[in-house]
Amino acid sequence: MDLFEKFLANRGPLGSHSHYAHGYFTFPKLEGEIAPRMVFRGKEVLTWSLNNYLGLANHPEVRRVDAEAAAQWGMATPMGARIMSGNTNYHEQLENELAAFVQKPSALLLNFGYQGVVSIIDSLVSRHDVIVYDAESHACIIDGVRLHQGKRFVYTHNNMESLEKQLQRATKMTQETGGGILVITEGVFGMSGNLGKLKEVVALKEKFQFRLLVDDAHGFGTMGETGAGTGEHLGIQDGIDVYFSTFAKSMASIGAFVAGEQYVIDYLRYNMRSQIFAKSLPMPLVMGALKRLELLRNQPELKENLWKVVRALQSGLREKGFNIGTTESPVTPVLLNGQIPDATSLTLDLRENYSIFCSIVVYPVVPKDVIMLRLIPTASHTLEDVAETIAAFEAVAAKLDKGLYTKTTVEV
Amino acid sequence: MDLFEKFLANRGPLGSHSHYAHGYFTFPKLEGEIAPRMVFRGKEVLTWSLNNYLGLANHPEVRRVDAEAAAQWGMATPMGARIMSGNTNYHEQLENELAAFVQKPSALLLNFGYQGVVSIIDSLVSRHDVIVYDAESHACIIDGVRLHQGKRFVYTHNNMESLEKQLQRATKMTQETGGGILVITEGVFGMSGNLGKLKEVVALKEKFQFRLLVDDAHGFGTMGETGAGTGEHLGIQDGIDVYFSTFAKSMASIGAFVAGEQYVIDYLRYNMRSQIFAKSLPMPLVMGALKRLELLRNQPELKENLWKVVRALQSGLREKGFNIGTTESPVTPVLLNGQIPDATSLTLDLRENYSIFCSIVVYPVVPKDVIMLRLIPTASHTLEDVAETIAAFEAVAAKLDKGLYTKTTVEV
Repeated sequence: MDLFEKFLANRGPLGSHSHYAHGYFTFPKLEGEIAPRMVFRGKEVLTWSLNNYLGLANHPEVRRVDAEAAAQWGMATPMGARIMSGNTNYHEQLENELAAFVQKPSALLLNFGYQGVVSIIDSLVSRHDVIVYDAESHACIIDGVRLHQGKRFVYTHNNMESLEKQLQRATKMTQETGGGILVITEGVFGMSGNLGKLKEVVALKEKFQFRLLVDDAHGFGTMGETGAGTGEHLGIQDGIDVYFSTFAKSMASIGAFVAGEQYVIDYLRYNMRSQIFAKSLPMPLVMGALKRLELLRNQPELKENLWKVVRALQSGLREKGFNIGTTESPVTPVLLNGQIPDATSLTLDLRENYSIFCSIVVYPVVPKDVIMLRLIPTASHTLEDVAETIAAFEAVAAKLDKGLYTKTTVEV
Repeated sequence: MDLFEKFLANRGPLGSHSHYAHGYFTFPKLEGEIAPRMVFRGKEVLTWSLNNYLGLANHPEVRRVDAEAAAQWGMATPMGARIMSGNTNYHEQLENELAAFVQKPSALLLNFGYQGVVSIIDSLVSRHDVIVYDAESHACIIDGVRLHQGKRFVYTHNNMESLEKQLQRATKMTQETGGGILVITEGVFGMSGNLGKLKEVVALKEKFQFRLLVDDAHGFGTMGETGAGTGEHLGIQDGIDVYFSTFAKSMASIGAFVAGEQYVIDYLRYNMRSQIFAKSLPMPLVMGALKRLELLRNQPELKENLWKVVRALQSGLREKGFNIGTTESPVTPVLLNGQIPDATSLTLDLRENYSIFCSIVVYPVVPKDVIMLRLIPTASHTLEDVAETIAAFEAVAAKLDKGLYTKTTVEV
């Protein structure tokens, strides 16, 4: 059969909606500077879709350094992989500052978060090792686990009984193979806003021998007294053996890092395929990350502002009877029951008639009968933005209850 | 066992050399602007290590646009994945221009090349399909193949007899599974400079039903009359079903793209995990890529200058009796027989006493008894640079022949 024939029959879970969704629900264009008010299809909308948690994307200091660094270095330098020709003093300085910030002995800068996580997992395990991972782990974790040639056991999301059971299986398995166990979970789950039960996971080290990798993409900069992440927030940062975060959320950039014991990071530095065989992070992104990290350290008011907005939004939604799940982080899902047509009509109404832009999340990211509207509050939002949004949500939820959206045809 | 215990015993093929190599042979720092003359450890060196083929890294137009775009947009925008919130008109414009440039109906911009290739392969195949790939494929291709749940057959590098044999096996296999066949190779192999035998591969479509994915990282911009790559150079661009290139070589940036038939690219747009679940390419990199592509189109003298230097370097080395393998591209390997200690001493001598900086490539990238010094000529090099380099190579090769390096202890 022709390899491509299958694409005609099945365009994939998201692609199958593209005939009406493209350019509106999928691949929408938000124009103007990253801010709560942006332009969508020529109209100003109040935006809750961007992981710009601390508002750094347009912070004047960030904008100044981004511009100056690009003027000084251009986007090309350094060229080549770090190990071949792409290393600089600034890359090393950033690594040292990141390690100190997350309270680990050593850190390694990564050229992109997604392939970073994939290669971290790939490097940490041999075929004799067993991976035990949370069922709701991000796609990059899943792809890393998929590369693993040994056994992997998945545990029910945040379910410690399930984890313990899988650790028992893994322990038995590694007694045969002579390997070790890697447990993988997240600090903040980006869809639900749940925190990984890191305290409980780390406590299981008393009963089982394993190492813990935590992807803290949404927790870095937003959680913990100093912003060092979910481990700090929960008081178990030392129990995280390998700490990962991307720069794509609170740092408002791209790139990522991984931190841990010196010998572990040294091993990763010399063995991660996506880093050894791909280009180093460009200098303007390194200089920009140094500035962003400085602001994380020195402007705690950014995180305070974020949480002021988070608390107002989440308590406001709860007061009005909305189901926002079990979030304990800035990520604010609003869970509605309905099928995809209801979801699209409701989102259309929100955008067109209430000028509220939030992301609609559907299957396969959430179960088939759930509509998730995901709100990402930031330090740049105001309490007025929150009030306006809650009022709009009340209005559309009432229409949803009355079944009004089911009869609407989406035309965009 | 402790998962990390293995790192103490085995630091990996490259990590095992880090105690003497780090900061010199591995993770060296080249300072100053990307150019033939840069600073290594405080001293000016003539550099042949950077894939800046067309000299665009410091082209004044590129530097101007890199700086202006960063000043206008900052490095943060757009935020989120393309499909969620990270799409812009400029991303789409770049896709259209890239598609036209490589003579394909459609193109998809990728946030990073390595994870791009991994996810392209992952998206193109189901477990019923069979992958047949060249044995010397880049690490990113190998990682993509590793994700495949169906059968994969490797063929001896550029060996059409071996490919045909594997296509026979694959055809038989897919007759059972009902799947299709994906053949993967490269336009220019980055270590040897060999061209993939694309003409011969495409000719096999007469005998077998398969689709062809070509990673043309080193061929894009350097090969073909218009710079459209190795397929154009060999006159079989139409036979390439899925064309990939990174921006990390001739484009002197990061990011990448994939091009092909509209419905195939549409499928990839909605199904590539590393794109759906990771951030969009930042705007300054998009604007910078538009400018670089414009220069590829409008300044053919860049490619002419590159090839003038390539021809001088390669014919000069051959005349002096150096084994540069079977390169037909700018990539210029100099293959010497020896063990790693000889290679390190020779490289040290080249750098310290002849001020020539080139990359030393050792096992596992090349076989254990081969020393490869890899030279990457660029449009910015001069014929004087070439003469100086060939003279230095003659001098160190004579010392290697006399066994002088074997007795040297490397101290850096």
